[in-house]
Amino acid sequence: MPGPGKVICIGLGPGDPELMSLRAHRHLTGARIIAYFRKPGRSGQARRMVEGMLPAGVEEWPMEYPVTTEIPFDDPAYNAALAPFYDHWATRLAEGTAGGDVVVLCEGDPFFYGSFMHLHSRLPEGLAEVVPGIPGMAGCWTATGQPITWGDDVLTVLPATLPDAELRRRIGDTDALVVMKIGRNLPRLRAALAAAGRLADAWLVEHGTMPAQRVRRLAEVEGEVPYFSIALIHGRGRRP
Amino acid sequence: MPGPGKVICIGLGPGDPELMSLRAHRHLTGARIIAYFRKPGRSGQARRMVEGMLPAGVEEWPMEYPVTTEIPFDDPAYNAALAPFYDHWATRLAEGTAGGDVVVLCEGDPFFYGSFMHLHSRLPEGLAEVVPGIPGMAGCWTATGQPITWGDDVLTVLPATLPDAELRRRIGDTDALVVMKIGRNLPRLRAALAAAGRLADAWLVEHGTMPAQRVRRLAEVEGEVPYFSIALIHGRGRRP
Repeated sequence: MPGPGKVICIGLGPGDPELMSLRAHRHLTGARIIAYFRKPGRSGQARRMVEGMLPAGVEEWPMEYPVTTEIPFDDPAYNAALAPFYDHWATRLAEGTAGGDVVVLCEGDPFFYGSFMHLHSRLPEGLAEVVPGIPGMAGCWTATGQPITWGDDVLTVLPATLPDAELRRRIGDTDALVVMKIGRNLPRLRAALAAAGRLADAWLVEHGTMPAQRVRRLAEVEGEVPYFSIALIHGRGRRP
Repeated sequence: MPGPGKVICIGLGPGDPELMSLRAHRHLTGARIIAYFRKPGRSGQARRMVEGMLPAGVEEWPMEYPVTTEIPFDDPAYNAALAPFYDHWATRLAEGTAGGDVVVLCEGDPFFYGSFMHLHSRLPEGLAEVVPGIPGMAGCWTATGQPITWGDDVLTVLPATLPDAELRRRIGDTDALVVMKIGRNLPRLRAALAAAGRLADAWLVEHGTMPAQRVRRLAEVEGEVPYFSIALIHGRGRRP
């Protein structure tokens, strides 16, 4: 039987540690065990965000993604390869609750494109608790200094991994736009924005709210962009 | 000349005061002056959220919307009637910065459908600072206990004020869905969801993260819903 503790996944927000919630901070600073995803050989963004904020004696459980350089990240086989990894960690986190809460760190908001869901769906009903966080996109639109939506704007959030034609169609069919998962898809995204006649309105925010934050017009950006990049177009206040 | 202080708009998050960020809390508890919108005769949601957290001696500037019962909220004339009100308060907030920072309270995230933008656009460049918050929708999808998006899901955020045909079209053209500004539009929204074949998948969250929180299948909801209501449909993890 798992419990009496819970698996508490805390959303840490967009990057700046001061943007985590009071509740996330309470769970973090009172933690007995913290767990977080990372790639082997990396410290991991979630873990970096809490540097200097951990209580003395906390136990750390890095959940290292299996090496998968042989499978592209967007191949369904990639997720299939991850299933035993998630199974293992769901079991281990549940066992960990025998001694109290186990706190899982998550960038942004856990239920908005977060990896925690793969553990959440494997944990016994009622054992997991989620503390929402400020999504990365909110940190990014705040960094641009302009509202993303007002009035009756429609907002569309797209992954840049969509097929070209669908990217283009959806970019042309919304007031405000947020594009996630850009990475190597920047040239395709730029072409889709141009085809939809909206390239001049698009911004790219890299490392939003972090020390390396950079805000540029997307049309001016060449080459690769970091994983923590979001493209956006501000709404203009549609009237009903 | 305004300044040396700033007008700092802090996002308070979805409702539960413990979900405000550490930074919002720092500005709040160190405030000399706080300002917040409210309807005449009401305490105002933003002000209620910070009850018991204000420093001794803080000055309160309630910004009371002019009485506008004669104009529907979604009529463009409504905003026109508000222009002098926003002009007045932008001037007063700017003047207030002569003595230090002025803190403006805002539910949710200020740049996501927030009223602060009407002040922001009137303030001198560089005088305003925005602290992002957890949007109401993130509190609501967390309340349902399921992720709103994963994999390559497309998320669409709609105001329920859109025309029927457009509501229906957009509801049928997305993986995950969030609908704001429901209020009196619930019957129209329900019809649009049914016409798009998605009524059975829709949830209604009232007062998300607040003591009165209620999560129901939208199909089961009759009559009026409170202002702080959000409808949503979870994505299913689209694959590229």
